[in-house]
Amino acid sequence: MGCGMRQDIVLHDYWRSSSAYRVRIGLNLIGLPYRRVAVDLVAGAQRGADHLAANPQGLVPVLEIDGLRLTQSLAILEYLDETRLAGFLPADAAGRARVRALAHAIAMETQPVCNLRVARHAVALGGEATMEGWMRHFIALGLEGFEGLLGQGPEGQFCHGDRPGLADLCLVPQVYNAWRWHVDLSPYPRLSAICERLDRLAAVSEAHPDRVKPLA
Amino acid sequence: MGCGMRQDIVLHDYWRSSSAYRVRIGLNLIGLPYRRVAVDLVAGAQRGADHLAANPQGLVPVLEIDGLRLTQSLAILEYLDETRLAGFLPADAAGRARVRALAHAIAMETQPVCNLRVARHAVALGGEATMEGWMRHFIALGLEGFEGLLGQGPEGQFCHGDRPGLADLCLVPQVYNAWRWHVDLSPYPRLSAICERLDRLAAVSEAHPDRVKPLA
Repeated sequence: MGCGMRQDIVLHDYWRSSSAYRVRIGLNLIGLPYRRVAVDLVAGAQRGADHLAANPQGLVPVLEIDGLRLTQSLAILEYLDETRLAGFLPADAAGRARVRALAHAIAMETQPVCNLRVARHAVALGGEATMEGWMRHFIALGLEGFEGLLGQGPEGQFCHGDRPGLADLCLVPQVYNAWRWHVDLSPYPRLSAICERLDRLAAVSEAHPDRVKPLA
Repeated sequence: MGCGMRQDIVLHDYWRSSSAYRVRIGLNLIGLPYRRVAVDLVAGAQRGADHLAANPQGLVPVLEIDGLRLTQSLAILEYLDETRLAGFLPADAAGRARVRALAHAIAMETQPVCNLRVARHAVALGGEATMEGWMRHFIALGLEGFEGLLGQGPEGQFCHGDRPGLADLCLVPQVYNAWRWHVDLSPYPRLSAICERLDRLAAVSEAHPDRVKPLA
């Protein structure tokens, strides 16, 4: 008789990391219970030996699951989609390409440029660079492109149809960052409306940085 | 009797764009013939009405295929993998997660930060920012992480086993950029050896920027 040892799913994350936030929403949407291990990026814990052994890139998130240690938020979400039939991607190849393109428009073009270490580097170089100026410039550029891509697809409750998927998992943290850096969202009515709908889902609201941040 | 109209595959690209370079290698590896439409990023053609209609993000590449207009290089490559059985990803979910993590370590963490528009913005802000300084800092950081991730996986001719895949398609243009900006590759022997093997494949060498750049 098989009596499998139940293995904990462990997410190494930081409360404010966009990419960790994506994975929290994904795990919640599937309904997979997981334990969080906080990696304090501000204190530099991601450069500690413990964390570097888990991820030589020195980034969060890292997900321990099925005896594996997975890195890169979108690779993690694709893995969950394949192994837990999460439905983060539609069934048809054209739809999958569209959802991935939307997700990557944020995850590849926008968020990495607004990564803390990138913005800090720009500011450290001096000149007129400020954290807020850097963030606002690139977040607005990214949201503008995303809004345009949304307009090319079918209407729906969420980014692609009526079920939240990979693009939505990327959109929520990006809009949180826009809010944090006081980016005016009024030029982006489509993505704003989608994000309001997403925020009403428990799986999304329970993953919010304010819900998981450490007590002061 | 079905006699399908054969539709041209059209790649809108720029000779020096890393993400277009990825797609050229991918199409070559599969052996799909395609026609190139050059979008001159330096002259700003990506912000022209024609190109914005194809891609509201104002980026290359765009691939016309199967009656679709696909954007985002990795979404395009995943589409080709799904519809042309290209073998860019291994069959097992753990292997797929590893290859995607490697690909994303470049395509999400490194290349977007070294995008021309990002580096130019940093330089325009003044201070000590220079194009070369910006590129070298972030390319070295990205390659360091990639080298570490390579060390965690099985040995092989390429990034994951003995067949070139999604991670290799990302690595080649990144190493080209490292060479272009005079980044010392000696701290990264694993990825350097893999890249040398890749460069010996006709599908890779024929996609090289020097092979497709417009005549002066």
